[in-house]
Amino acid sequence: MIGTYFIIFIGCCSVVLGKMYESVSFLSICVTWGLIVMVMIYVLGHISDAHFNPAVTISFTLLGRFRYKDALFYIIAQFVGSLLASGTVSLLLRPEKQHFYGTVPVGSSFYCFIIEIITSFLLMFVISGIATDTRAIREFGGVVVGSTIMLNIFITEQVSGASMNPARSLGPSIVLNNYQGIWIYMFGPIIGAVLGAFTYNVIRFTDKSLTDITRIKSFLM
Amino acid sequence: MIGTYFIIFIGCCSVVLGKMYESVSFLSICVTWGLIVMVMIYVLGHISDAHFNPAVTISFTLLGRFRYKDALFYIIAQFVGSLLASGTVSLLLRPEKQHFYGTVPVGSSFYCFIIEIITSFLLMFVISGIATDTRAIREFGGVVVGSTIMLNIFITEQVSGASMNPARSLGPSIVLNNYQGIWIYMFGPIIGAVLGAFTYNVIRFTDKSLTDITRIKSFLM
Amino acid sequence: MIGTYFIIFIGCCSVVLGKMYESVSFLSICVTWGLIVMVMIYVLGHISDAHFNPAVTISFTLLGRFRYKDALFYIIAQFVGSLLASGTVSLLLRPEKQHFYGTVPVGSSFYCFIIEIITSFLLMFVISGIATDTRAIREFGGVVVGSTIMLNIFITEQVSGASMNPARSLGPSIVLNNYQGIWIYMFGPIIGAVLGAFTYNVIRFTDKSLTDITRIKSFLM
Amino acid sequence: MIGTYFIIFIGCCSVVLGKMYESVSFLSICVTWGLIVMVMIYVLGHISDAHFNPAVTISFTLLGRFRYKDALFYIIAQFVGSLLASGTVSLLLRPEKQHFYGTVPVGSSFYCFIIEIITSFLLMFVISGIATDTRAIREFGGVVVGSTIMLNIFITEQVSGASMNPARSLGPSIVLNNYQGIWIYMFGPIIGAVLGAFTYNVIRFTDKSLTDITRIKSFLM
Repeated sequence: MIGTYFIIFIGCCSVVLGKMYESVSFLSICVTWGLIVMVMIYVLGHISDAHFNPAVTISFTLLGRFRYKDALFYIIAQFVGSLLASGTVSLLLRPEKQHFYGTVPVGSSFYCFIIEIITSFLLMFVISGIATDTRAIREFGGVVVGSTIMLNIFITEQVSGASMNPARSLGPSIVLNNYQGIWIYMFGPIIGAVLGAFTYNVIRFTDKSLTDITRIKSFLM
Repeated sequence: MIGTYFIIFIGCCSVVLGKMYESVSFLSICVTWGLIVMVMIYVLGHISDAHFNPAVTISFTLLGRFRYKDALFYIIAQFVGSLLASGTVSLLLRPEKQHFYGTVPVGSSFYCFIIEIITSFLLMFVISGIATDTRAIREFGGVVVGSTIMLNIFITEQVSGASMNPARSLGPSIVLNNYQGIWIYMFGPIIGAVLGAFTYNVIRFTDKSLTDITRIKSFLM
Repeated sequence: MIGTYFIIFIGCCSVVLGKMYESVSFLSICVTWGLIVMVMIYVLGHISDAHFNPAVTISFTLLGRFRYKDALFYIIAQFVGSLLASGTVSLLLRPEKQHFYGTVPVGSSFYCFIIEIITSFLLMFVISGIATDTRAIREFGGVVVGSTIMLNIFITEQVSGASMNPARSLGPSIVLNNYQGIWIYMFGPIIGAVLGAFTYNVIRFTDKSLTDITRIKSFLM
Repeated sequence: MIGTYFIIFIGCCSVVLGKMYESVSFLSICVTWGLIVMVMIYVLGHISDAHFNPAVTISFTLLGRFRYKDALFYIIAQFVGSLLASGTVSLLLRPEKQHFYGTVPVGSSFYCFIIEIITSFLLMFVISGIATDTRAIREFGGVVVGSTIMLNIFITEQVSGASMNPARSLGPSIVLNNYQGIWIYMFGPIIGAVLGAFTYNVIRFTDKSLTDITRIKSFLM
């Protein structure tokens, strides 16, 4: 809950500031989201496994890596953290209507839905590769996952709002009473994340014999 | 003392340059503060445990991780380092009055006080998680703490000056003879840091059984 | 194939966005390419050795580090990944003609050819040093290779398009039906990469006696 | 020689591009210098100990960590590398007179001399702390030294040209036949680096007893 709180708080502050001041560039908002996720992974990863995203928690649970009861507690904590963070942002910065810091589709809803699925797929594929595979250099998990979030926001923010996280979208929606397109950010990330986790599992079970890997690859093609 | 000296020297230089030249962007000032803290943590962490901030030293002392007598020497060294650095900046760059490189509240004093407490809370929470917990990936301590400082400055610099460090504020205040709102930057960081350290201690004592963790979490809610 | 797909997809998206929106700076495009390569190295390095570039695969094969048959599968997968990614970019962003995201020579063809050789030389020299030498700090491989790609693009993008990778150039060329100067990006990177790999092998076989190393160096001079 | 070649080549290219195109910002030039130094430290550190700077080599030699004969070979290789790189930059980019990529004092010579001493002091202090102390987290050496170079350039480039390296200054001076203030960049970095290395040695010999460290510190004050 604390982790999600600070991620949403710092990230949404940067969004509001970006809309208030011209000197705050788009790139720095992407960097902010990526860095705060990285920081929280290193700070809380050894305590709570650094789940700050219901889509990630659901994917791990469906893969059998997480108990259903635990997942429920985690998801509630994530939503509560997001709600508290969104409230703090509103209290501190007093944003006006045009400083909305939630996620709203810019183009068509279907288009945003596809984008959310692709970015969440990439995010969960990366998390699976770096954090669940004992052969990976897991120490770099925070750097890699943070960079992925930064890249996804950079690529898609101007189109779909770049949520990848139902909690990140629902908190500001409740506080600012704006539910436009909220279904996109509730279901898109979950579908994408589950697909990403299963895709990584398909390519995971390989030994290092290169011929075998290429055989699997050519089979997939 | 040397560590604090270079942090304040490099950081304040970037603030002055940012006010002198338009080509020096706000983002690069945040990056500068974050990187020089990171550098000094890696260079001096194995010698002095990288205490460059009286608020951090006081928090560790109250938690019993540091002797009172040592803490006193450390805090004096930090203030002396900051004072010398502020003097060097003034000698080298000869800043005019509008190039003030200390910290001054922009909004109301109470508001800035709250902001200093929140950012120092986050900073000390992060330091506790990454540097005092044997389960953490401590090698990344410098990267993580530097990033946190960068984020805190990015979010709050335009409101409260983003000190988080009494020594960082007092040095320029003495050199430039401007004590406006100095109490905010003396007490805010200390209160925030102590709260952050104690909060981490509450969630620290967990074993990796997920059910237990969620039990503690739901209890906290 | 998945790795190449996401590298080309994210990278080309940033190129298109950079041509569509003024707020997307040149620097952030370089950072995007560097970071997505870094991410994919950490995510897939332990599965496929992170070959996303036919020039790299060919160099390793010529040095006897890779079987010819495997190399063929890899190269096919890389081109298929690039083709699919280029198609996705076109479908999602619907770029117009001036938003071309392939690589096209700006100056004379010969000049670009030389630039591609130099940058690919540097890239393969770096990969050889960090990833094939057991004495290197291999954990940082992703960071170092990603940074090299970022630097190469930063230095040469405005002159030669900065490909360094035949697959990266051929995919967009096929999708957008623009083959201008494609031979530069097919042969330049391969020549440069092979030279870079062999150059590193010349300086590799040294023991740590400094006199011996300087003897080899003075011989090379 | 290869390392120095690529550092000077990439770094000077960015300087020329920064003067040619407005879209290349000052910050990105600083980042470029920092990253290419980081890359080369990781690529060649295990082969040549990553000496790319005569001032660093001289400091280590005076401290008895390097043989005089070896140092001579190293320094010659560094100057040859810088000369070749400067020539390549001129051939490839054909810079005009206002695109000078060497280092020239902006303010008074004495002032620049002091600045070069301070920045080189910091650089060598950092190198000593991270690379020569077995207690340090040496894996991060490249990141930390690269960041220090980036910071030093960021702070001083608009005043003194920010050389910190005699080879970096002499190469472009010879190729472009401009020796203005070259003595500053020959002697300033060496004096600063030697002082930095000796200063670190003063604080190095401590055991972890905090009382002892503070005793030494209070003695220094």
